[in-house]
Amino acid sequence: MSLERIRALGFSERDARVLWEHFDDAERRGKASHGHARITWLESLEGLEPAARPERVESAPGFERWHGRGALGYLTLAAICDAQLAAPPVEARLVVAERCFPTGHLGHWVRRLADGRLLAMLTATSPARLAPPGLAEPKLAGTNPLAIGIPSSDGRPLVADVSPARATWGDVIAGLAGEADVVPFGGEQAHKAFALAVGLQALVDALVREPGHAAVLLVAQPSADPVPALRQAAGGARLPGDS
Amino acid sequence: MSLERIRALGFSERDARVLWEHFDDAERRGKASHGHARITWLESLEGLEPAARPERVESAPGFERWHGRGALGYLTLAAICDAQLAAPPVEARLVVAERCFPTGHLGHWVRRLADGRLLAMLTATSPARLAPPGLAEPKLAGTNPLAIGIPSSDGRPLVADVSPARATWGDVIAGLAGEADVVPFGGEQAHKAFALAVGLQALVDALVREPGHAAVLLVAQPSADPVPALRQAAGGARLPGDS
Repeated sequence: MSLERIRALGFSERDARVLWEHFDDAERRGKASHGHARITWLESLEGLEPAARPERVESAPGFERWHGRGALGYLTLAAICDAQLAAPPVEARLVVAERCFPTGHLGHWVRRLADGRLLAMLTATSPARLAPPGLAEPKLAGTNPLAIGIPSSDGRPLVADVSPARATWGDVIAGLAGEADVVPFGGEQAHKAFALAVGLQALVDALVREPGHAAVLLVAQPSADPVPALRQAAGGARLPGDS
Repeated sequence: MSLERIRALGFSERDARVLWEHFDDAERRGKASHGHARITWLESLEGLEPAARPERVESAPGFERWHGRGALGYLTLAAICDAQLAAPPVEARLVVAERCFPTGHLGHWVRRLADGRLLAMLTATSPARLAPPGLAEPKLAGTNPLAIGIPSSDGRPLVADVSPARATWGDVIAGLAGEADVVPFGGEQAHKAFALAVGLQALVDALVREPGHAAVLLVAQPSADPVPALRQAAGGARLPGDS
């Protein structure tokens, strides 16, 4: 079974469970591109360091900087979420996670924080695969998603997790799309999705000290509880992140 | 001329110039929906309080809360930008601007910050005009844009300013679109733009203490200077925000 296959790669029991929960959550939420297909992908990776541990290298009021130190991005984000929940910001905190890849479906992490009553916004970079709309080159930005998680007193956080790409690399890995589908979404307005991808790329790249794929997380204390009213206004319509 | 018309509404010379610079910048950048057409719109507003002044009501390391106190959102954002440039964050700061409307084209404000060597991400809410894709109701989110500004050592910041709407209310005011065009962009993937709009709506609504249209700004010190290399990689391709 999946958990066994992850353990077999040499991860600790705890890390194997973190990875398995992420893949399983993706699968259950219909995000197969970040689901079990990724275990096969992990098995194919060279240079996997299952014993690597991320490190918090800087901590100040309203700011933290982490470094993956060779750990999988999933495990770095899990450690960062644990740290935020253990010591939440007084008001808000920006967390820069250097060398943090792969990060999976970002909705998973902001949901963990929202379940812990923290508001979160998260983005992460990945290999450059998006060229300006209509062009095959130059590829200037990753399929950098943006995820937003908002706690709700009704126990059902709002989780928006948007990729600027029509299909992600995960979709390609999962056999759900071809490489030619990894383009900015939006058809005649694809310049908007491209601008979002490039903007997020530059945001992350400007915040790191060491070049490489990275993640940027904003966590904050909510001052209000808008989700139940939003869900009521939606009537039967599905809100982002609802199952 | 435009500046005279703004002065005639009762604004101080300083405020009139802030407003004029915003409208003029919009016009020059081809964002007519936030340009001179807005002066006529201002003239039509009831309850304009040209003497109102925004107030910083909370200040802590990494966090500020402002309140518009009846001032136009443009002037509140201008005051916030001035304050960030005068006293930049050590690392990062989240700024919540309550009762901050209208805010105009957000690229204008993040560009000001990027010109001052600060990285910025800004969103703002507006009347709910976006319903789930394919539906006319319920309208659950404003056409809440997301703007990202990244300083560049070549003097040309990267400015991405993306609205999740195919056409904005400003386009309607400017006569460039009809109300039926104010829908999430993206065609068959419009659920992504809708999720972004709803996510930003809930993010802002969860951070304010007093319900109402508001803005949320993240400002941070850059640790790297990725834009010149990105521009070089782009070759002749236009980067977001380039004229």
